[in-house]
Amino acid sequence: MRLPATFAATAAALLVATGACAQSFQKPEDAIKYRQSALTVLAAHFGPLGAMANGRIPYDAQAASRHADVILVASTLPWAGFGPGTDKGANPTRAKPEIWTENAKFKGHADKMQAEVQKLAAAAKTGNLDNLKSAFGPAAASCKACHDDFRKD
Amino acid sequence: MRLPATFAATAAALLVATGACAQSFQKPEDAIKYRQSALTVLAAHFGPLGAMANGRIPYDAQAASRHADVILVASTLPWAGFGPGTDKGANPTRAKPEIWTENAKFKGHADKMQAEVQKLAAAAKTGNLDNLKSAFGPAAASCKACHDDFRKD
Repeated sequence: MRLPATFAATAAALLVATGACAQSFQKPEDAIKYRQSALTVLAAHFGPLGAMANGRIPYDAQAASRHADVILVASTLPWAGFGPGTDKGANPTRAKPEIWTENAKFKGHADKMQAEVQKLAAAAKTGNLDNLKSAFGPAAASCKACHDDFRKD
Repeated sequence: MRLPATFAATAAALLVATGACAQSFQKPEDAIKYRQSALTVLAAHFGPLGAMANGRIPYDAQAASRHADVILVASTLPWAGFGPGTDKGANPTRAKPEIWTENAKFKGHADKMQAEVQKLAAAAKTGNLDNLKSAFGPAAASCKACHDDFRKD
């Protein structure tokens, strides 16, 4: 099935809306678990788009579109889990302290990723593999840039 | 901001679409981590709706609507992580073996939960606290019913 043509506009609105949605967490580890979970979901749906773009799995336009829907929403979520005081908790985190000491830079990465994911999702919904290939690289680079700066090895 | 009125229809389409979207996982623990992550995200956005419905936090119509958007998508995701052979992996899981030996019953619970979440999301988007209160109980009961039958204590 095809999703409604209105989805892109809706997702864009959701992106803005959830970006402003502060979760409240009882303990730092709750925030850490939440952000890790959102990033796990994001990666699980991002990965297959990359596999299609790189030819590791066959291109499936419908599946690509569905993965795009999920990553659009998931890409808006982790940031609420990086509030002040969530640099450590009872569970392990690979978050570097620079997330909080250089927070404007971190937010810049987050914004860039969400913008690239929006482009990737739009490309995934064209039903054209070349469009997906073109958009995947910059989106993956936006993930890597943030991981390089702000995630421990 | 208000989300477009088309969201409910779009989300319903997404629900159907992602429900048919089989993730592929390299190892059982990848599937376990994925489904746990999706359920963590779901719970994190479900909880505040319950807190509003029960008066533990002030009612915020905009926040309720945003949480509804996330739970609509998140409620479609965990099921792909319960494939055959994912009853155990390198990481702990509270999934009972009956998920696979009584799979039709498990799927019945999953379908029921998604139907109740759709109603809850629709109620959350009316901007009326009484509607949210009415829809929250059945949605929470649908979570609990499945946990009672298929999740270890």
